[in-house]
Amino acid sequence: MPMNPQWRLVARPQGLFKETDFRWVEEETPPLGDGQALVRTVYLSLDPTNRGWASTDTYLPAVPLESVMRGIALGRVEESRAPGLAPGDVVQGMLGWQRYAVFPATALTKLTPIPLPLSAHFGLLGHIGLTAWVGLLQIGQPKEGETLVVSAAAGAVGSLVGQIGKIQGMRVVGVAGSDEKCRWLTGELGFDAAVNYKTRPVLAGLRRECPKGIDVYFDNVGGQTLDAVLSLINRRARLVICGLISQYNATAPVPGPQNLSNLLVQRARMEGFIVLDHVDQAERASADLIRWHLADRLKYRLDVVHGLEKAPAAVNRLFDGSNTGKLIVRVSEE
Amino acid sequence: MPMNPQWRLVARPQGLFKETDFRWVEEETPPLGDGQALVRTVYLSLDPTNRGWASTDTYLPAVPLESVMRGIALGRVEESRAPGLAPGDVVQGMLGWQRYAVFPATALTKLTPIPLPLSAHFGLLGHIGLTAWVGLLQIGQPKEGETLVVSAAAGAVGSLVGQIGKIQGMRVVGVAGSDEKCRWLTGELGFDAAVNYKTRPVLAGLRRECPKGIDVYFDNVGGQTLDAVLSLINRRARLVICGLISQYNATAPVPGPQNLSNLLVQRARMEGFIVLDHVDQAERASADLIRWHLADRLKYRLDVVHGLEKAPAAVNRLFDGSNTGKLIVRVSEE
Repeated sequence: MPMNPQWRLVARPQGLFKETDFRWVEEETPPLGDGQALVRTVYLSLDPTNRGWASTDTYLPAVPLESVMRGIALGRVEESRAPGLAPGDVVQGMLGWQRYAVFPATALTKLTPIPLPLSAHFGLLGHIGLTAWVGLLQIGQPKEGETLVVSAAAGAVGSLVGQIGKIQGMRVVGVAGSDEKCRWLTGELGFDAAVNYKTRPVLAGLRRECPKGIDVYFDNVGGQTLDAVLSLINRRARLVICGLISQYNATAPVPGPQNLSNLLVQRARMEGFIVLDHVDQAERASADLIRWHLADRLKYRLDVVHGLEKAPAAVNRLFDGSNTGKLIVRVSEE
Repeated sequence: MPMNPQWRLVARPQGLFKETDFRWVEEETPPLGDGQALVRTVYLSLDPTNRGWASTDTYLPAVPLESVMRGIALGRVEESRAPGLAPGDVVQGMLGWQRYAVFPATALTKLTPIPLPLSAHFGLLGHIGLTAWVGLLQIGQPKEGETLVVSAAAGAVGSLVGQIGKIQGMRVVGVAGSDEKCRWLTGELGFDAAVNYKTRPVLAGLRRECPKGIDVYFDNVGGQTLDAVLSLINRRARLVICGLISQYNATAPVPGPQNLSNLLVQRARMEGFIVLDHVDQAERASADLIRWHLADRLKYRLDVVHGLEKAPAAVNRLFDGSNTGKLIVRVSEE
């Protein structure tokens, strides 16, 4: 069996990840048992939620120390002792930060062929696309003519959410952290406006770009942006809590939003969701997403890091503002 | 026409109401126009939301300075030039803090006779009963066997909410500010437990009394109690935001809940509502509430202040912990 290079989590991160929170280990891949397959990781997805997995129990238990860092990935089956899986099949699962995984077939999802590159499973479909589709359409309940605000709008999920909002006939305003990202949102993705929260107060920016108030907010960040949005919501607004990036690396208790009373005054709803609860809708979501993409109404951008060894440094780019689009690690050739 | 004693709002309150925020004025009642009725106020309802009305635009515009303080009240028609209203009829409306009101019939609701004292329109029915009924049953979506927590549980709305929760088969835990109130909740109203937030940390108390976590929270207060609840919610919990008493008298920005991330982790929903949006359901609610009361499953307590002149001092009792049950002012004889 091949040698398996891997990153193990060896310390609970304080603030951003440090390289010393991980240890590089190479060990022999174990032999296959009945019902198992050997999978070679091709693309490893890096997601903001990884930070939470590393530090504490959340919607999943914390990654145990000394074990392979958890990560969603897709790969090729190299060998199989599982019915229904054959060498060359493309599968997805929680393969982790490693080059090879020996997994039972029950922990793998065989991916059906799509008319797009393999990486589209992370840039457009999969957990990213489903998060955007479920969060906006089902939790957010958008209506034509309403105003949508998306935070972390140049991120993997946010960039899809805004475009799906446009397809629904909404006014779409993105919040992002650089002029370059803002130009991408309005110039290439068709957002109506974008606010750079690093160069001016986000409240002033949103007030200007949302003259009719805010009906739906798709929140990836929490913190001050959530507070600014709360002060501008319309009656019966829906605030979809998808992520709270602004506090994942906090080392002290995070102040909550001061404008929560507006939830009452405006009879508004704030709701959290986790994509894992909605995998039964993946097929419907994928059909929409592929159709919209092929009609050139839904674009995605990949931010590809080459080499598993770069994963610990790369994951922090989700938090320091240097990432645009879907961040993935290309671990081996397709 | 009779002389009309009244309290006018003359200053925006800072913190609790002060007597100097009001001015006592007696003026002659104007003559009746076509379609108008002269109503003598019998019971004036004092509600926590009055504090918001006095200071700023919320779900209603702020009460204009120098005008009669806004208040929900019921009274008797003394004279009428409106079809459908006759002397002796009982009506309800935003009569305000005054002994007489000359109102168009369109601003008055004629109350149908009930098999209960007139004051039950505020203690059990009307905006109080509808708030409890809509908030718990429709926004909170309770299920048998779930755990309900109610804050300001010895207040007018909270005491009804907890009892309706028991009728739905829930475990009901109240949060209140004195041992006497807690004894009333568990001893007379059938709450399973009550936590006195003034004698021990509310988080420790709730953790002990909610061994299976919290499924529905009916929030009248916000602040630390909301934060404690957020850290104990179960998956898909519903947090009904009915009021935020803890911050109505705040003179500085109020910190928001620090545990908001649990909304995401637990896929929970927090939703504000205003009873005015739900008046179309008043008839259904009243039918339930009267039926439950007559079957001795739903009790209410009145806290009656005698004399309109006492209203400015009495309204603060909603915020200083000295009020139990529904606070009303008896302005004149029934």
